[in-house]
Amino acid sequence: MDSMHILTQTFQVPYQYNVYFTKELFSKENQLLADFFKKEQRENYLGKALIVIDEGFLAFHPRLPAAIQAYFQSLQEIVTLIPEWVIVPGGERVKNDPAYWEEVVEAVDRFAIDRHSYLIAIGGGAVLDMAGYAAAVSHRGVRHIRIPTTVLSQNDSGVGVKNSVNYKGKKNFLGTFVPPVAVINDGDFLTTLDDRDWRSGISEALKVALIKDVAFFEWIEAHAQRLAERDPEAMAYLVPRCADMHLHHIRSGDPFEFGSSRPLDFGHWAAHKLEYLTQFEIRHGEAVAIGIALDSIYSMKKGLIAEADVKRILQVFHVLGFELFHPKLAEQNKINLITGLQEFREHLGGRLTIMLLEALGKGVEVHEMDDDLIRESVDYLKTAQVATYEL
Amino acid sequence: MDSMHILTQTFQVPYQYNVYFTKELFSKENQLLADFFKKEQRENYLGKALIVIDEGFLAFHPRLPAAIQAYFQSLQEIVTLIPEWVIVPGGERVKNDPAYWEEVVEAVDRFAIDRHSYLIAIGGGAVLDMAGYAAAVSHRGVRHIRIPTTVLSQNDSGVGVKNSVNYKGKKNFLGTFVPPVAVINDGDFLTTLDDRDWRSGISEALKVALIKDVAFFEWIEAHAQRLAERDPEAMAYLVPRCADMHLHHIRSGDPFEFGSSRPLDFGHWAAHKLEYLTQFEIRHGEAVAIGIALDSIYSMKKGLIAEADVKRILQVFHVLGFELFHPKLAEQNKINLITGLQEFREHLGGRLTIMLLEALGKGVEVHEMDDDLIRESVDYLKTAQVATYEL
Repeated sequence: MDSMHILTQTFQVPYQYNVYFTKELFSKENQLLADFFKKEQRENYLGKALIVIDEGFLAFHPRLPAAIQAYFQSLQEIVTLIPEWVIVPGGERVKNDPAYWEEVVEAVDRFAIDRHSYLIAIGGGAVLDMAGYAAAVSHRGVRHIRIPTTVLSQNDSGVGVKNSVNYKGKKNFLGTFVPPVAVINDGDFLTTLDDRDWRSGISEALKVALIKDVAFFEWIEAHAQRLAERDPEAMAYLVPRCADMHLHHIRSGDPFEFGSSRPLDFGHWAAHKLEYLTQFEIRHGEAVAIGIALDSIYSMKKGLIAEADVKRILQVFHVLGFELFHPKLAEQNKINLITGLQEFREHLGGRLTIMLLEALGKGVEVHEMDDDLIRESVDYLKTAQVATYEL
Repeated sequence: MDSMHILTQTFQVPYQYNVYFTKELFSKENQLLADFFKKEQRENYLGKALIVIDEGFLAFHPRLPAAIQAYFQSLQEIVTLIPEWVIVPGGERVKNDPAYWEEVVEAVDRFAIDRHSYLIAIGGGAVLDMAGYAAAVSHRGVRHIRIPTTVLSQNDSGVGVKNSVNYKGKKNFLGTFVPPVAVINDGDFLTTLDDRDWRSGISEALKVALIKDVAFFEWIEAHAQRLAERDPEAMAYLVPRCADMHLHHIRSGDPFEFGSSRPLDFGHWAAHKLEYLTQFEIRHGEAVAIGIALDSIYSMKKGLIAEADVKRILQVFHVLGFELFHPKLAEQNKINLITGLQEFREHLGGRLTIMLLEALGKGVEVHEMDDDLIRESVDYLKTAQVATYEL
């Protein structure tokens, strides 16, 4: 063998997981989770399950612990439920404070959760992101089941392959691409959401609709009033359809994002920045609605779409009950907002890549954004918002 | 769309990277690294390179910083070298103390190393493990180039897909499976190793030879004396051949270890435990040599291989200069050692799976280990070691 040469390593790693849509997940009659554990059972091995749960969600579901315990009681030959749960706050602070992440890692260690045992996270997107990251790096990855409890996490973040925590004020700075082994969406969990969280997740559905599927946009447009009135059937259509589009995008593209393109981040450069500028006073989905509105207006100012299209977009958000302007957008002659572009590029890596619209239902990527046009778009948004409320 | 249904997500993630074998990597005449950066260059994007380097290695190569700076000077149109390097100690303490990992993550943040920029780690296996883990989780993964500087990392750990740090005394508790974008082995770097590090990495070559390739075992047996005398040509054959077997094993098996089987961990359950019992006084490769010897003897006591085979194995290690017994093996009636079995199972997950030998060059997996036979194997090893030295 020559001492100056090259060995080329090539392989593919296969992933498969199901996203389930159900109701009354932990009722005795619902065999979904029991069937999952049975299917996954390994010879001569009794797995464990550790639960990480959102305390806000738990407060709205006080009978859940007893139901879950009873459910696992009947599965004790197959999987052992760790009786001590890790209870964490929901929202961004669970990603901001490393103590929560460490609490999960410590529990994985203390209860000897191994690579073939389960870490089950129950909560909104932030809890799933944090717990998923802890699961992904403990023992180089324990099996992670996600049970999203919000519209946003059931139709978007919870069904995907990413996890993360924030680090020194940088959103999602630490994280991995590691798919869960299952995602289980219980429609009943959405009924206890407050109005802001109910509404907030719909903006991600509008996002995928606007860049990929005009028919879905028109469905949302036609059902906006029913969605605003919290019609569960409308939501039961919206969530799986949005999740399906998200899953399709992941498998047909670049699942672990080795390239620079991130089409599903339409509206997100401004959204991420605005979340920080408001110190997370506005929620992710609310920020995304504003980001989508802003980049839609920008698309119009670039001559890509008509003003009539923009008006339809703003009108849907309006009917859904979103506020589309926040004073932080305009602060410091919009400079604070515009620095978000550079931070977004840095987080994605490579060349700046921003998704705009060239039609309703059709996105287009650009590699430059004009600061003055962004400023004009913010001004347009401010005026439009006032005008909308005056209708 | 029915509200009670299942979406199945399936995809494959492709990986490809080269393992290069070269000499005088940073001399002007060597275009390997320059060609790599040119090949990877992206349109309208100037990447950065952050160096994390082993201070012990640096001390032996005082002219390296100037050479590296000059090398990157000529590449400044393609990649920008961050002038400030992260200099860390080598050996297990760089994985034990989270401050080093954090130092790397902070540098990624401070110097704005994005997902398409490079984190280049230069050092032994521990430094590569720690820096690789920091690279893998920063921005959900920045591009990682490994430049291993020891026999162990050039022929084994450095060419694979794993990274990690220790956590509260648990070896490799935190980590990921994330392949590097390139591994570059410079044979010259091995010349400055001390005798223990030169020898230590050879045990991983014996490991793959014993479980997979009797011809390679016989080559090592025939060249043991030359290897012990630090013959660079013998090493220049051993390293790429061992690396090649390692790479082949990864791509033809289960690269991210979703199953319980870990054939390349032959001899490692005892080795990991012994490293802790000696507080890392013995090095990984030295511990692996002892672990291999122990499980070879155990294989004989199980009737899988002949005593003559065991004697050949012990003799090769002896000629190479390894000590095959450590008093910690026998401590507490061997109970301390034996607890390592359970910890090993827990780290791998699932059912206990241990590789033994059924012939020279042929491994066989078992799912049980007999404590009494382990004790007898330790006693045999102790006697054999004494006997060998009396030869």
